[in-house]
Amino acid sequence: MPPYGFIVMQLAENLVVRYVRQAGPGPLAADTFALERKPLPTLREGEILIRNIYLSIDAGSRAQFDDRADYVIKATLGKVPGSSGAVGEVVESRHPDWRPGDLLATLHARWQLFQVVVPATEPLLLRIDPDVGPLAMYLGVLGMVGFTAYIGIFHVGRPQVGETLLVSAAAGATGALAGQFGRITGARVVGIAGGADKCAFVCERLGFDACIDYKAGNLDQAVRVACPQGVDVYYENVGGAIQNAAFAAMNDFGRIALCGQVGQYSGVGAQAGPNLMTAVLKRLSIQGFLALDHLDRHATFLDRAVAWSLEGRLQHHTTLTQGLENIHEAINSLMAGRNIGKQLCQVSVEPG
Amino acid sequence: MPPYGFIVMQLAENLVVRYVRQAGPGPLAADTFALERKPLPTLREGEILIRNIYLSIDAGSRAQFDDRADYVIKATLGKVPGSSGAVGEVVESRHPDWRPGDLLATLHARWQLFQVVVPATEPLLLRIDPDVGPLAMYLGVLGMVGFTAYIGIFHVGRPQVGETLLVSAAAGATGALAGQFGRITGARVVGIAGGADKCAFVCERLGFDACIDYKAGNLDQAVRVACPQGVDVYYENVGGAIQNAAFAAMNDFGRIALCGQVGQYSGVGAQAGPNLMTAVLKRLSIQGFLALDHLDRHATFLDRAVAWSLEGRLQHHTTLTQGLENIHEAINSLMAGRNIGKQLCQVSVEPG
Repeated sequence: MPPYGFIVMQLAENLVVRYVRQAGPGPLAADTFALERKPLPTLREGEILIRNIYLSIDAGSRAQFDDRADYVIKATLGKVPGSSGAVGEVVESRHPDWRPGDLLATLHARWQLFQVVVPATEPLLLRIDPDVGPLAMYLGVLGMVGFTAYIGIFHVGRPQVGETLLVSAAAGATGALAGQFGRITGARVVGIAGGADKCAFVCERLGFDACIDYKAGNLDQAVRVACPQGVDVYYENVGGAIQNAAFAAMNDFGRIALCGQVGQYSGVGAQAGPNLMTAVLKRLSIQGFLALDHLDRHATFLDRAVAWSLEGRLQHHTTLTQGLENIHEAINSLMAGRNIGKQLCQVSVEPG
Repeated sequence: MPPYGFIVMQLAENLVVRYVRQAGPGPLAADTFALERKPLPTLREGEILIRNIYLSIDAGSRAQFDDRADYVIKATLGKVPGSSGAVGEVVESRHPDWRPGDLLATLHARWQLFQVVVPATEPLLLRIDPDVGPLAMYLGVLGMVGFTAYIGIFHVGRPQVGETLLVSAAAGATGALAGQFGRITGARVVGIAGGADKCAFVCERLGFDACIDYKAGNLDQAVRVACPQGVDVYYENVGGAIQNAAFAAMNDFGRIALCGQVGQYSGVGAQAGPNLMTAVLKRLSIQGFLALDHLDRHATFLDRAVAWSLEGRLQHHTTLTQGLENIHEAINSLMAGRNIGKQLCQVSVEPG
């Protein structure tokens, strides 16, 4: 039997995933959630109904079940958890700008097949142009992941021609794009990823100049070898031992763009950070940022990212887990680092 | 018997402190060093001989004996250790700009009574105007300590009128001045210091708006109470638990000026830093800095600091340990936090 969402055209009702059993640390168990059928919602004026096709899976998808992570809105037991983005197709509309068959990307989604969207109050609701490329791009290179990497490189870290940019989680959604933006700046780009396959992907498919396999051991030494001129800009989104190795390799006056720490969301508790004496002696600039603070730059980002994608300068890769009933596995895939590029849960088929 | 240096006028020879026994962790033992008499050096053209009056004691004074501190020039066993500053009197000159009796402050000093200075190659050699105030000011408010605090406040942290500035080690040399500069910016200034006496000093003598006694326990709570609007700028020079409490209290878009971590220099090993996820979520700017990178601002600093001192807007305080033979005790005083204001070792008397 195909995954539930793939037989949706025969359904006149909704499918939702409910959070029914408290999640513990580590991988999410299947019985944490229950799949339910529900009636389709009725639209009010100004609303549209969309069929979700792809749900974004990111570190926050896991963190919403971790009581120690005080930085995301928690999932409530008995309710339907949320996702930070979806690509969907309009199936019914009571809004003048949207018609059935239109495709869109939204930042607010729930773990369900059909959902109501209120365009007037939805930030960054994007109309998808299917000629640009695969729909999933709108949750990757053209989505918040791409926007985050863009802000981190062009407005926070700002590597210059000939400088060395180091990118952690380089085979992951954000890191893969941060490194590719880094290439566009003219910097030498070095990635850090887990395993030989990911490193090969990062160098051969994404065009990084080098990639360090952190699972191969001796990380400090490997960073020194891969970055013989030291590190001028570090794009950080993992934390832990990798962060410490990067700090140790920074050049004087280096910049660190902090965009999140995927290793910190997994229900295992927060690890300590690097001793900041290094930051004094090297006069480092360490800047935490969230892309949503930079919405005035979003239109420019989108124009550039579309153009670079069409020119072939930005590669987009996804790891798909199919079926709304398997969404916990999509999260486990991300947290275990099994994904390459953007992790998604595909909950229904793309249109014709 | 008075300390050795105080009978210098009868001596026609030098006194030096030699590093004779490997220092362990913790307080410096007296037998780590040996006091020796040596002949006075002979001057070459362009050199001057000065009699040191005050030697600057700072965290680096201790760190030079700590093999794990890779960020300072290490003292060599068998040699005379260094100090990051001295106030002295010219006793002999083969340089046209300097005459016996002139007073100066230099950044390079050794643990000895008389030393040779080469004005042509000495950075920031300052001619002391004794009308400005006590000589020791040139190692405090008008010295590198003052310049560091000035850069940290006016060019790194940049608190604005009405914002909250939190200053660690507020009764120490740099912190006391950072807070006073903060008052000049119009910020609300809250200190952190160890013990009720220091806190009283910080509020009553230095004019901070509040001061938290970190030894009283429940530091996170105390910071929240003392900073009801949160912390916009944190002037950091301690590390450890205080740093963690400050991170927790930062407002979104807060700035952290990192100027050193005195708690990290004491031969006890570097502590871990705060988890930097906080910095992402709050979009913190964390900037390590060293005042020597800002020498183009030194003349302006000095003009302003002299003016503010003469207007009574900058208080200068010192803790003196007397006698070159007691210099290890001066360092132990600093490392144990027994000093209020700038810790100095007075090695000879002020002129008439």
